[in-house]
Amino acid sequence: MSVKCYTTAELAGLLDASLAGSAELQVSGIATLAHAQSDQLSFFHNAKYMDQLDTTNAGVILVKPEHVDHVSGVALIVADPYLAYAKASALFANISIERTPHQISSSAVVAVTAQVGTRVQLSENVVVGEHVVIADDVVIGANTVIGDNCIIGSGARIAANVVLYSKVSLGEHCVVHSGAVLGADGFGFANDRGRWVKIHQLGGVVIGNNVEIGAGTTIDRGALDDTVISDGVILDNQIQIAHNVFIGENTAIAGCTAVAGSTRIGSNCTIAGGCGITGHLVIADGTHITAMSLVSKSLKKAGVYSSGTVVEPHQQWKRNVVRFRQLDDVTRRLKKLESIVKQQNTEGQSE
Amino acid sequence: MSVKCYTTAELAGLLDASLAGSAELQVSGIATLAHAQSDQLSFFHNAKYMDQLDTTNAGVILVKPEHVDHVSGVALIVADPYLAYAKASALFANISIERTPHQISSSAVVAVTAQVGTRVQLSENVVVGEHVVIADDVVIGANTVIGDNCIIGSGARIAANVVLYSKVSLGEHCVVHSGAVLGADGFGFANDRGRWVKIHQLGGVVIGNNVEIGAGTTIDRGALDDTVISDGVILDNQIQIAHNVFIGENTAIAGCTAVAGSTRIGSNCTIAGGCGITGHLVIADGTHITAMSLVSKSLKKAGVYSSGTVVEPHQQWKRNVVRFRQLDDVTRRLKKLESIVKQQNTEGQSE
Amino acid sequence: MSVKCYTTAELAGLLDASLAGSAELQVSGIATLAHAQSDQLSFFHNAKYMDQLDTTNAGVILVKPEHVDHVSGVALIVADPYLAYAKASALFANISIERTPHQISSSAVVAVTAQVGTRVQLSENVVVGEHVVIADDVVIGANTVIGDNCIIGSGARIAANVVLYSKVSLGEHCVVHSGAVLGADGFGFANDRGRWVKIHQLGGVVIGNNVEIGAGTTIDRGALDDTVISDGVILDNQIQIAHNVFIGENTAIAGCTAVAGSTRIGSNCTIAGGCGITGHLVIADGTHITAMSLVSKSLKKAGVYSSGTVVEPHQQWKRNVVRFRQLDDVTRRLKKLESIVKQQNTEGQSE
Repeated sequence: MSVKCYTTAELAGLLDASLAGSAELQVSGIATLAHAQSDQLSFFHNAKYMDQLDTTNAGVILVKPEHVDHVSGVALIVADPYLAYAKASALFANISIERTPHQISSSAVVAVTAQVGTRVQLSENVVVGEHVVIADDVVIGANTVIGDNCIIGSGARIAANVVLYSKVSLGEHCVVHSGAVLGADGFGFANDRGRWVKIHQLGGVVIGNNVEIGAGTTIDRGALDDTVISDGVILDNQIQIAHNVFIGENTAIAGCTAVAGSTRIGSNCTIAGGCGITGHLVIADGTHITAMSLVSKSLKKAGVYSSGTVVEPHQQWKRNVVRFRQLDDVTRRLKKLESIVKQQNTEGQSE
Repeated sequence: MSVKCYTTAELAGLLDASLAGSAELQVSGIATLAHAQSDQLSFFHNAKYMDQLDTTNAGVILVKPEHVDHVSGVALIVADPYLAYAKASALFANISIERTPHQISSSAVVAVTAQVGTRVQLSENVVVGEHVVIADDVVIGANTVIGDNCIIGSGARIAANVVLYSKVSLGEHCVVHSGAVLGADGFGFANDRGRWVKIHQLGGVVIGNNVEIGAGTTIDRGALDDTVISDGVILDNQIQIAHNVFIGENTAIAGCTAVAGSTRIGSNCTIAGGCGITGHLVIADGTHITAMSLVSKSLKKAGVYSSGTVVEPHQQWKRNVVRFRQLDDVTRRLKKLESIVKQQNTEGQSE
Repeated sequence: MSVKCYTTAELAGLLDASLAGSAELQVSGIATLAHAQSDQLSFFHNAKYMDQLDTTNAGVILVKPEHVDHVSGVALIVADPYLAYAKASALFANISIERTPHQISSSAVVAVTAQVGTRVQLSENVVVGEHVVIADDVVIGANTVIGDNCIIGSGARIAANVVLYSKVSLGEHCVVHSGAVLGADGFGFANDRGRWVKIHQLGGVVIGNNVEIGAGTTIDRGALDDTVISDGVILDNQIQIAHNVFIGENTAIAGCTAVAGSTRIGSNCTIAGGCGITGHLVIADGTHITAMSLVSKSLKKAGVYSSGTVVEPHQQWKRNVVRFRQLDDVTRRLKKLESIVKQQNTEGQSE
């Protein structure tokens, strides 16, 4: 791992920032305000950490114009320090795949009918099936298997131990993390007098450009039509996307959320972790769903939605949870009591 | 991928259907009513899509007798069009495993003490341990590892990057998808003054015939006795089955559900996605559990069960969820009020 | 699998037990009270199974002093039979990894800059990256990939198809199960007018000694600082640990729980399965959380916490869940009614 260095002037140019302070300082990394050293870049974007801004050892700090006075070292002034930090992280990134690239390993097996672009790196034991098309600048990690008839767009980075079943298409500049499985059979069965008869899953998976897919995430192939993940979607770890789901552009889904078959999620949604979205629903563009929510009906209007209850001490919870099962009864009793009391009031007034 | 073709007469024979229309039409695939072309088969099983039935371009349609008049092309008349579709999907299926079969790859490693049947296909880098018995017609995908002393029944299809630990037995005609792990250690530890002492997991995993196991699903080995999955069970993706669980015949479990240790689930149950079933419970045959339910007590009577709450707008939810924590108090106050009002009524009447 | 045998006298010595009965009996395995044979060891630690204690065929039983009279065969008397059973399980364990160890396989690929200790076993197709340091007595299963700059402590047992990305450090005597992914990118993105910009994840993962990591569990690398799992932590299957999480010593987490970014969990906690813990929280030492709880605020005081509701018949649940959405309204109406009734009472008394 060689260390990349930039002068403050170079960083200002690369990050579209105004420079306040020395243009010549050498910067060799990024760190949090709490841990940054004098040769490191940090960023301030949350008022809660104002104390840290005042005491940090960071040599250079990305700040909004209004906080520049708090910076004792060099300030790089930007409208959105968090976004600038994201861009800076790319400058200091080493390989984002797990290992040093190795061109095409001698142990990789590539079918003779496959087409492989230039500057493609295939690590040890990678297996590439028949009629696969791999564009330029693709990196594939060790022990990953690419099924027949897959298409991998340029610049894709696929980590170790990933599986693409046949007929999976991946756009440009996608990232797929280890343990992800794209194109396994959707969960489709018909019941024949108690016995399950498999519905063979004949569709594929179509993934757009700039999609990131987390470790252990599974995206099933469609039953007849394809499962579709649009451009710019970001999926965290251990997400389950069932057959024939459609996810619109730039939607973000956090870890361990599951989306059941044929549900259509709009663009620019954010879905927190641990949610369950049942099948055949439509979720509007711009919908936001909080952690561990159960969505069992369509959400046709953008907004923020939640379900579930929040932790409380166990003994207290035990008493409340019993009452939940009486809630309809409680509500009816209240209504009845309201009408009795209203009646009493009327009688009282008429006396 | 060569295209398989059938005449309508052949399909009628294969699907046990009555034919209404041309016996000679060549059918080259299956599609939904919305997308089918004139050389494709479709099916109608949901009254909601009657419009599509009337306007589809499908050349052939699987229908119930009562809907044959709506079919402008060829009708294949069956009692259960969805089941007939399932059977038809097998006719048009290409390989359900991720890659073209390759017999036994030169990079597969098979222990000398292992027995391998006829027509077995082992893809690249498959590793087969000591004393493994693999029956006829088994297909194993690339980079899959079969531990010592495993038994794989005839016709099993195991996808790429699957792991079977030692002493896992798989019945006939099972399907195991990528990323599945069968036979990892159950989560058993004794606490020794704060420190966890591992309980070595000495049991195995026994899986029946015609079982399907989804991508990323994990089934742990038993602590002393075996973990058992009965014939005909279907498990979706990312399911967690803990040590010593028993699942009865033909039970279906959807994605991301977890079953804790030693729980016994009956036959012909359906358990939706995202459920949690705690340990040492008994779930009756024919039990149905809806999505994201928490089951923390045995369900001794067949039926449909649910828990949790359903999404609502976040601001409204915030107010309700606070009240949940007051629910026992609210119920007690209601009861008290009821008795006061009753007392008033009695007094009012006695005046 | 050769069978290990111990005499009752040997077992008494190894398990620190007092022996009541023959010192010469040969014991060849462990089993439950229900299934044990006359040459097997069993244990009694749950009063619920007293019947089984009285009727078991087990030749030797681990019991507390007060239950020795119920043992017809040989008794091994200990203070904590369950803990003694855990220790005994190690005596009878075969390989806990999935296959017979093979030293360094000829198909393993080890970078020339890597350092590998003595008695290290690397199975088929293991890939070890640049500058990796593997201590003595480490066992790594087939098709596992160890990224650049990883450190693996002595005695670690890593199963098949595991991935360690670069810069992951694993302490001594850890166990990592198949499908686990350590060090994939944390889920960090900044939003640039609707489009997600990746925040490259530059931190690592630091795992202490004696940590067990279950099948399919994912632990992401830190954004800038490291993700930290302390000594003695045990993690079940399919757990998701996000970037920059800290987990204190000896904390146990059950399957399918997810912990979001930067949350700090104390020592000696137990967190049941299917829980969701949101980001940037602090959970006190000695906190216990029951199954499927949503933790969305810090828990600063040790205790037992819960959330959610428990299954009930579906028709009943449907009525109650509708009322949940009226709960704030119901509570307000109750309060109003209380004040009306109180007013009536006052008026009644003042008449």
